[in-house]
Amino acid sequence: MCQACNYTIHHAQHHFGWDNSIVPAERVTPGSTILFHCADSSAGQLGPSSTVQDIVDLDFGKINPVSGPIYMEGAEPGDSLKVTIDSFAPSGWGWTANIPGFGLLADQFTDPALTLWKYDPETLAPSLWGDQGQVPLKPFCGTIGNALAEPGQHSIVPPRRVGGNLDIRDLAAGTVLYLPVEVAGALFSVGDTHAAQGDGEVCGTAIESPMDVVLTLDLVKGENLKFPRFTTPGPVTQHFDTKGYEVTTGIGDNLMQAARDAVSGMIDLLCKQRGMAAVDAYMLVSTCGDLRISEIVDMPNWVVSFYFPRVVFE
Amino acid sequence: MCQACNYTIHHAQHHFGWDNSIVPAERVTPGSTILFHCADSSAGQLGPSSTVQDIVDLDFGKINPVSGPIYMEGAEPGDSLKVTIDSFAPSGWGWTANIPGFGLLADQFTDPALTLWKYDPETLAPSLWGDQGQVPLKPFCGTIGNALAEPGQHSIVPPRRVGGNLDIRDLAAGTVLYLPVEVAGALFSVGDTHAAQGDGEVCGTAIESPMDVVLTLDLVKGENLKFPRFTTPGPVTQHFDTKGYEVTTGIGDNLMQAARDAVSGMIDLLCKQRGMAAVDAYMLVSTCGDLRISEIVDMPNWVVSFYFPRVVFE
Repeated sequence: MCQACNYTIHHAQHHFGWDNSIVPAERVTPGSTILFHCADSSAGQLGPSSTVQDIVDLDFGKINPVSGPIYMEGAEPGDSLKVTIDSFAPSGWGWTANIPGFGLLADQFTDPALTLWKYDPETLAPSLWGDQGQVPLKPFCGTIGNALAEPGQHSIVPPRRVGGNLDIRDLAAGTVLYLPVEVAGALFSVGDTHAAQGDGEVCGTAIESPMDVVLTLDLVKGENLKFPRFTTPGPVTQHFDTKGYEVTTGIGDNLMQAARDAVSGMIDLLCKQRGMAAVDAYMLVSTCGDLRISEIVDMPNWVVSFYFPRVVFE
Repeated sequence: MCQACNYTIHHAQHHFGWDNSIVPAERVTPGSTILFHCADSSAGQLGPSSTVQDIVDLDFGKINPVSGPIYMEGAEPGDSLKVTIDSFAPSGWGWTANIPGFGLLADQFTDPALTLWKYDPETLAPSLWGDQGQVPLKPFCGTIGNALAEPGQHSIVPPRRVGGNLDIRDLAAGTVLYLPVEVAGALFSVGDTHAAQGDGEVCGTAIESPMDVVLTLDLVKGENLKFPRFTTPGPVTQHFDTKGYEVTTGIGDNLMQAARDAVSGMIDLLCKQRGMAAVDAYMLVSTCGDLRISEIVDMPNWVVSFYFPRVVFE
């Protein structure tokens, strides 16, 4: 598939969690272009014909596999791994779930739920939401990072300063990402590919979708980054923008509560305007609604706003 | 200036802070269109030839005047005031300041600083940042809200569920805002107009700029909103988008600290890439950098990202 690729990392070359003692899948030099086959974040436990029972039965010991690790020759602690995100070959299907105990409103949505998606992997036309709406797509890597310096096995779930489960929607084609290196060789891995997500990933899942990813890895010596940074080549919300947004807010002295209030307000609004079930609205907005911090300085109250793209229903 | 306006609220018809005993400047019926003359947030203490000494001398008893209040006939607690933001007539000048003790990084930036801006109020072409850059403009109302039910005088600084100092950058022309009503007549006021701001208003000030505002006020009975909501007519970041973004992140179990880390990372990056003074970078990013919550579900670590539009320097 990838003419320009120097290496291919196959599905079988994945690992669960981060551990800097995992034997590298490949050793590469700066400038190498690599094709990664990435499973979905259920590691194949869910498929295009899954039911909600498969959410109940999920084995959490086998979630979020990442393909790798890649040992970058010459990489040392204090360097940055420069990752150019070249392209995606999406699979054409995906899933969004409410997983009990997980998600911004886990206390309010305690029952498992599942939405399945189909889309055209060539055109990437918006994926239909029942007969009511459609979600514009922008494939990206949910989990992308280097191994931690701290020895032992570390959960894949939380992102850290070396990256990992960042779930940053704009780590899409054309973006250049810089990741802090903590161990010799960096030990880079990638997975958890998403066909679409809003900023926040509020229900805990996006449109989880297996796909192939092509990345070019380079090295920046001695940048001493504290946290990941990235550069986008153009607009980041053009796929959501055209019809404007419905926006709800949360206001108070706690950003987390303000975010919860903003998302709750949007779910209430969609239920009222569209007659949707609350859990369906919760899953839908996770794939396309953006959490923004509107103001963070007007003591003691901050404003978090949740932007839902009207193009979904218009 | 406004042919379609039913009323004009003059500069002199302003108040400091919120107090539901303030005598209305006007009583109106639903559907009324009103021209508001709005002072800048220093209430004229700063002008186009101000120096940093004027920041030192600021009288904080006279900041953030709002024009009004407007008594809406028929408005009762539980209703929403529907505010259609029709148009702005900006003045052509503005200021951004670091005010000691105020702002997201107040502990790091303890000295007063002032940036003055000029812009063309007709074309609204980007305002020049020295000879290095330019900031795209999008005028909006920083403070817009109704009176609180609680009697007495309340600080203008914090926003509340009835609105107020929301500093939501997208309360711009074409947006329709819905504000909870807590007292008979709503007692609506507006001010604190800004020529440009990024999401977060991180240094505590935007491009603070006096301007005239035309609003149409309507009433939605019994909506029982918990917090303000709004609808935008189209894209919200098109003025920033064209060249993409430089993005820094903060990652950890506290959203406030993650936001601080993301903004600190951007200031470091601009200082390094552009040779700017840190306080200048801090003020600049407040006018155009956007704080976004990239993920808020991957326990126990959240990701806040700060998006700086490359169009400023490219």
